[in-house]
Amino acid sequence: MITSLTNMRVKQLVALQEKSRVRNREGLFAAEGIKMFEEAPVCRIREIYLGRELREQLSKGIRYETIWKKVAECKRQGSLVEQVSEEVLKKISDTQTPQGILFVAEQFSYSSEELIKGARERWENGGRPPLFLLLEDIQDPGNLGTMLRTGEGAGVDGVIMSRGTVDIYNPKTIRSTMGSLYRVPFLYTDSLGQTIALLKENDVLVYAAHLKGEKYYDEISYEGGSAFLVGNEGRGIKEETAALADAYLKIPMEGRLESLNAAVAAALLLYQASGYVRNEKKKIDKGA
Amino acid sequence: MITSLTNMRVKQLVALQEKSRVRNREGLFAAEGIKMFEEAPVCRIREIYLGRELREQLSKGIRYETIWKKVAECKRQGSLVEQVSEEVLKKISDTQTPQGILFVAEQFSYSSEELIKGARERWENGGRPPLFLLLEDIQDPGNLGTMLRTGEGAGVDGVIMSRGTVDIYNPKTIRSTMGSLYRVPFLYTDSLGQTIALLKENDVLVYAAHLKGEKYYDEISYEGGSAFLVGNEGRGIKEETAALADAYLKIPMEGRLESLNAAVAAALLLYQASGYVRNEKKKIDKGA
Repeated sequence: MITSLTNMRVKQLVALQEKSRVRNREGLFAAEGIKMFEEAPVCRIREIYLGRELREQLSKGIRYETIWKKVAECKRQGSLVEQVSEEVLKKISDTQTPQGILFVAEQFSYSSEELIKGARERWENGGRPPLFLLLEDIQDPGNLGTMLRTGEGAGVDGVIMSRGTVDIYNPKTIRSTMGSLYRVPFLYTDSLGQTIALLKENDVLVYAAHLKGEKYYDEISYEGGSAFLVGNEGRGIKEETAALADAYLKIPMEGRLESLNAAVAAALLLYQASGYVRNEKKKIDKGA
Repeated sequence: MITSLTNMRVKQLVALQEKSRVRNREGLFAAEGIKMFEEAPVCRIREIYLGRELREQLSKGIRYETIWKKVAECKRQGSLVEQVSEEVLKKISDTQTPQGILFVAEQFSYSSEELIKGARERWENGGRPPLFLLLEDIQDPGNLGTMLRTGEGAGVDGVIMSRGTVDIYNPKTIRSTMGSLYRVPFLYTDSLGQTIALLKENDVLVYAAHLKGEKYYDEISYEGGSAFLVGNEGRGIKEETAALADAYLKIPMEGRLESLNAAVAAALLLYQASGYVRNEKKKIDKGA
């Protein structure tokens, strides 16, 4: 059992929680809590740390039987499983009331070719048209996590982010994804311009959420593939990026509001497009 | 100039920032930042605290001319204006990089009768149908603020919250309202049941966002008045409250998601209803 706050592993875990530089250098991230562990792909889990209290409950079978089984499975596959004192758990946790389990996992790795061409192929084989979310320089970790979560709900094929976007493995972001981190493909791109070009080559229209939009987001027929570009919380989309979009869309606002929250804007756009596709399909199914 | 961290006013300000009990006992709240001050109704501002740096810039006319004018106007109307040291500013601020201005204002006070009957009257006089957001036990301050902000955008007539909802004057909530706090009417109710009854009496249909919904939220004609009931982030709506709704609505979710973020769900529902009304009006205008 690790009980010392100055233990090397403890220091590494704290660094993984706090520093995106360390996370990216190691290709790892730390996550915590019952739900996040429950949904994590076993093959990615490298280290598991159990607080004393939860460890005892698990081994006695009082709670979370599935968690105990998963811990055993990870161990069989070579994961390190360590018990830590409650004090150490507090130290390595990013939350004020840790749930007793923290783990280290390998980062995900997707390519834009893979995501965009994959979506196009599924479409050609009778699936739904491609749906992407493009993010430029989103700063709020909670917003980013919420966008991933909403993206899963709306059925996006991927979330593609500028390098200036906050680290997706930030503990706050991970928490607010509610597990979507494991299921929604995402990547950071050096050039949103190149991403946009690749989307266009694959017949995906790129819409920029922009205050200067000529059309309302709910006046469009989202018949083909769609990608929505959402910009930084304060500044919006950079002019040079916005210029690459096929169209600007605006979201109507009553009152004296200057803008909506970025995650709310993304949600309205994604759900409008996925709802359009769903309702069109329903019409066809009825007609048939 | 206040320079002592143990000054009585400093202690009061910290209490106002940290404790909802103190805020509600005094009928006051603290807010900070250029934008929040700029948009605050003058008549509500009781005390203004300016950091030394901003105070100097203001008096030299280097920046924020309108802010300086507003400070002068508040002073004429009897507000206390005090300079504070940068150290004191840091102490009384809820943010890590205070913007140099913090103020104390009187809380808002609306009644459900006023809100609901007011909305109905505007409707009867040719305005848009009533639109309300009902919140049960929302816990995340940022979520609540975002809901108020989105509510302004969608044009709600009011946000009505259960007593178990986080305090709307929480500094994080205030920040995330982006000024909507001043413009969207809101209130806490002892009984959402009574509120729902009053809404129904005034021909407003109450929809509960519920995983057991029979219909998708975008399959409904929101012709009349609508109120959307959104529940706690973890538990959703209490059974006994949900039972009072006219209908349950669900939001479609792809993937393995259990639920959407509460503020995202509220946004989709409110914008669906306001968009329906806007687009129907457009059809009528075209036809005429």
